[in-house]
Amino acid sequence: MNQQTVTLTITCSDQTGLISAITGCIAESGGNILNLAQHTATDIDMFFCRISFAVGADFKNTNFTSRFEPIAEKFSMDWKLFNNSEKKRVALLVSKTSHCLYEILLKHADGELDCEIPVIISNHPDLAHIATAFHIPFYQVDTGKGKEAYEADLQGILEKYKTDLVVLARYMQVMSGQFCKRWEGRIINIHHGFLPAFKGARPYHQAWQKGVKIIGATGHFATEDLDQGPIIFQDVIPVADTCSVDEFIRMGKDVERRVLVEAVRRYLRHSIFLHDGRTFVIE
Amino acid sequence: MNQQTVTLTITCSDQTGLISAITGCIAESGGNILNLAQHTATDIDMFFCRISFAVGADFKNTNFTSRFEPIAEKFSMDWKLFNNSEKKRVALLVSKTSHCLYEILLKHADGELDCEIPVIISNHPDLAHIATAFHIPFYQVDTGKGKEAYEADLQGILEKYKTDLVVLARYMQVMSGQFCKRWEGRIINIHHGFLPAFKGARPYHQAWQKGVKIIGATGHFATEDLDQGPIIFQDVIPVADTCSVDEFIRMGKDVERRVLVEAVRRYLRHSIFLHDGRTFVIE
Amino acid sequence: MNQQTVTLTITCSDQTGLISAITGCIAESGGNILNLAQHTATDIDMFFCRISFAVGADFKNTNFTSRFEPIAEKFSMDWKLFNNSEKKRVALLVSKTSHCLYEILLKHADGELDCEIPVIISNHPDLAHIATAFHIPFYQVDTGKGKEAYEADLQGILEKYKTDLVVLARYMQVMSGQFCKRWEGRIINIHHGFLPAFKGARPYHQAWQKGVKIIGATGHFATEDLDQGPIIFQDVIPVADTCSVDEFIRMGKDVERRVLVEAVRRYLRHSIFLHDGRTFVIE
Amino acid sequence: MNQQTVTLTITCSDQTGLISAITGCIAESGGNILNLAQHTATDIDMFFCRISFAVGADFKNTNFTSRFEPIAEKFSMDWKLFNNSEKKRVALLVSKTSHCLYEILLKHADGELDCEIPVIISNHPDLAHIATAFHIPFYQVDTGKGKEAYEADLQGILEKYKTDLVVLARYMQVMSGQFCKRWEGRIINIHHGFLPAFKGARPYHQAWQKGVKIIGATGHFATEDLDQGPIIFQDVIPVADTCSVDEFIRMGKDVERRVLVEAVRRYLRHSIFLHDGRTFVIE
Repeated sequence: MNQQTVTLTITCSDQTGLISAITGCIAESGGNILNLAQHTATDIDMFFCRISFAVGADFKNTNFTSRFEPIAEKFSMDWKLFNNSEKKRVALLVSKTSHCLYEILLKHADGELDCEIPVIISNHPDLAHIATAFHIPFYQVDTGKGKEAYEADLQGILEKYKTDLVVLARYMQVMSGQFCKRWEGRIINIHHGFLPAFKGARPYHQAWQKGVKIIGATGHFATEDLDQGPIIFQDVIPVADTCSVDEFIRMGKDVERRVLVEAVRRYLRHSIFLHDGRTFVIE
Repeated sequence: MNQQTVTLTITCSDQTGLISAITGCIAESGGNILNLAQHTATDIDMFFCRISFAVGADFKNTNFTSRFEPIAEKFSMDWKLFNNSEKKRVALLVSKTSHCLYEILLKHADGELDCEIPVIISNHPDLAHIATAFHIPFYQVDTGKGKEAYEADLQGILEKYKTDLVVLARYMQVMSGQFCKRWEGRIINIHHGFLPAFKGARPYHQAWQKGVKIIGATGHFATEDLDQGPIIFQDVIPVADTCSVDEFIRMGKDVERRVLVEAVRRYLRHSIFLHDGRTFVIE
Repeated sequence: MNQQTVTLTITCSDQTGLISAITGCIAESGGNILNLAQHTATDIDMFFCRISFAVGADFKNTNFTSRFEPIAEKFSMDWKLFNNSEKKRVALLVSKTSHCLYEILLKHADGELDCEIPVIISNHPDLAHIATAFHIPFYQVDTGKGKEAYEADLQGILEKYKTDLVVLARYMQVMSGQFCKRWEGRIINIHHGFLPAFKGARPYHQAWQKGVKIIGATGHFATEDLDQGPIIFQDVIPVADTCSVDEFIRMGKDVERRVLVEAVRRYLRHSIFLHDGRTFVIE
Repeated sequence: MNQQTVTLTITCSDQTGLISAITGCIAESGGNILNLAQHTATDIDMFFCRISFAVGADFKNTNFTSRFEPIAEKFSMDWKLFNNSEKKRVALLVSKTSHCLYEILLKHADGELDCEIPVIISNHPDLAHIATAFHIPFYQVDTGKGKEAYEADLQGILEKYKTDLVVLARYMQVMSGQFCKRWEGRIINIHHGFLPAFKGARPYHQAWQKGVKIIGATGHFATEDLDQGPIIFQDVIPVADTCSVDEFIRMGKDVERRVLVEAVRRYLRHSIFLHDGRTFVIE
């Protein structure tokens, strides 16, 4: 019989006795801690904690909840409990470029992304053959019918496939504020610039014009403010002034795909704590 | 009144209930956990843990010890408790090159290395003026009088200054097996090669001959086997084939000084767990 | 009409007047230099040079050759002239792991590898479907029939497809000395260790045992001495001691695929100069 | 007798026959090319070239100039000729933090920066002792007397020491537009942010607030627009969300000092081509 594991995430203001209270409750519930990651952000006096623990076959979320609730109340905790056997369902949204899509599908096929990928959605037909090769349903949405109608279609597909997380894998459409709000903290976008620099269109051209010596990409939660949502992961690559814009674009692809996968990975591991407009990623 | 903090480090085989037992005992002792870092090495079923916690003015190591000993015995723990107000005393051994020495002294002066540096020892007079500029006693040892006699002198100086840690900051003398054993886990050496490759003399020349595309440096505990002691920290730098050996040497200096400081920093933070011939650095 | 470009590579001992003589001859031949990369290795007094230049429709290799030969003789040059319209033909050899194969095929499909890939060869059937998806002939060779017979089969396939370069994309078979010699400087292998450390089998396990803090991969020419051929490209990734061997293997994959592509790219750009057992890669 | 070397830098629009014309003229002048670095920026059709060559004892700049001028005119070149025996004179301006100052002085003492450092100037007395230790005259300027008067003093000191290059090594004073213009392309500043993000004051605080995962520093020419001058060199360091602002500041110091030295090094090697508001650094 496989061992069942759960993950508990906690956010609260920093106080004395937090870890002891939490781990004591886990022990009383028969849990065996596999991994505990914790951080006190001294700049803002906040406490973030993620604990994974193994539990017996008779473990019930409800039992743990009734045991943990008094503690959570006492310390004013924001907390969540995840059963790791319930895999997150991730919808991929793409347009015409394939490198991010391939990266996620190949990593997933290799067992490196612990989730389901029930659907791929696009505003173009170009990448349908890739979805087919990986045996995943492909939907083409019609953005020409107006933002509201199109986003209603999109919402319908996402619901049909019981989507937990939306991943914009170089999806070239701006989401409405309303849509972003509905999916707050559950849309991950990859921006091909080292944010907060080079927001908006053609970031590699902007970077070349400015003569920067390092380019990068940013994985972030989508919000109403374009390319300004909370940052999850970033990576960079040094560039020489002997590179053309086209070479920036080519070199950037490898950074983009890596950053997107790492951002999704952190989401699936429950490592991302959203607080006051920024993330704290605790590993 | 300043808050007193202590750090507890624990090594044992992996078992159920470790963290709860440990943190429970800390809570009972009135400790407030500031930072808990833990790792279970699944490849060898070992558990490593470092916990820093704040304690009251009336905290006594002996009281904690009597409370913790039964737990330690039950789980067959290897453990240590450090009072962070008692700064480690670090002796620096140097020869003729100054970059590692300067790095440690400047970081120390900037408050970035939490230790005392009571003495600098060398087998050459060349760097005495730097010791003087930083107001640290400088001793020149005579390696010509025979290994045994010279190491006895060295030992005498180290004892006189109540040395906890010996740092070989590009010290160009091989220590005897006996000396290494006496100071086991308390001598940090910097090797200017990316170990385990390029052991021994002239590692940059070896690297150039071999045509490697990345060079590096390694901070490690000194043992009887030259350049083969447990690795603490490593860093690398890409090199072009248009570099000469002299450029390797120049570029390597920046890596060496950084690696040495990072290795010492990990020692001072009690982050290094030595187990079965290798380290586990848990941060 | 598209402009025709050629690339000239030159190796010789360092002498006065080399660049002027070379570029003068190119100018006389009506060539317009697009890129000139040159390096004098002062440690061994050798000169390496690669020049790409545009030529008219009436340019003939033979005409240039008769003009250049007196210069080459005068300076004792080792030189080659490549017509860049004649794409190199690259055979891929694979076993069971797909990440390096996918990387090359996807980069090639994106126009990032300037070559033909006429054939994929394997000692296992597992990856045949990938070859099929990319419309490339797939051959399975039988290594069980004895090294000599099997390598004769292999040689036959390589000849049939007019192979210029053999790429071992995680091909888990050691080539005979005879085979390596026949293809000297034309077999690129990817080793999943940071050579010269961790030669041979299970390099990630070796690295974990040793407790290194950085792992890497090496693209090199295959020679009779296993994993000791001239290095073309290397890259590394820092690892934490909290990583298991399995995580090393997973993280290493991204380094391996990148290193292999970069090594092949340098070959296709004529950037690799082999001299006295090591490479000089001039970009 | 030591060999004399000169360096020629050329900027012009891309045309056929440039390299041949240039190297031909060098050969006729008896020069032996030691290093040629060239780049054609295809995005803007510009050609940048730097050539170092050895010349005989009887070489005269004026002779070369009269030979080269017709070529320069024909191709509308912007060009300069440097005698490498005439070392550049670099003035260091500092305030209260010492890490950048120490870095430059130590690299210079180690023979790694090929220049003179005739004077150190500050708006505070704090670092005078370092200047003294390195036997360099130290001047304290009075910024309280008004920008114009103070900058006149500054100008006086710079002229007195025949300054070629002004290096702002964490100098906490904004220069007037007039001063920047007078020293255009000859003031190098280090900004402790990864420009163009995080301009202005307290960049590490800005970065922490934004939750970026990588911080950096930028070496650039000072211009009237604060922190927006042409970028020369940049480097970055990944940061964890478990870092405080103070740790950002500490970690950033190592990046700052490295970036500043690398920027100065490129200036001294004549590797920086300023064109249309950005640099092209050709190495």
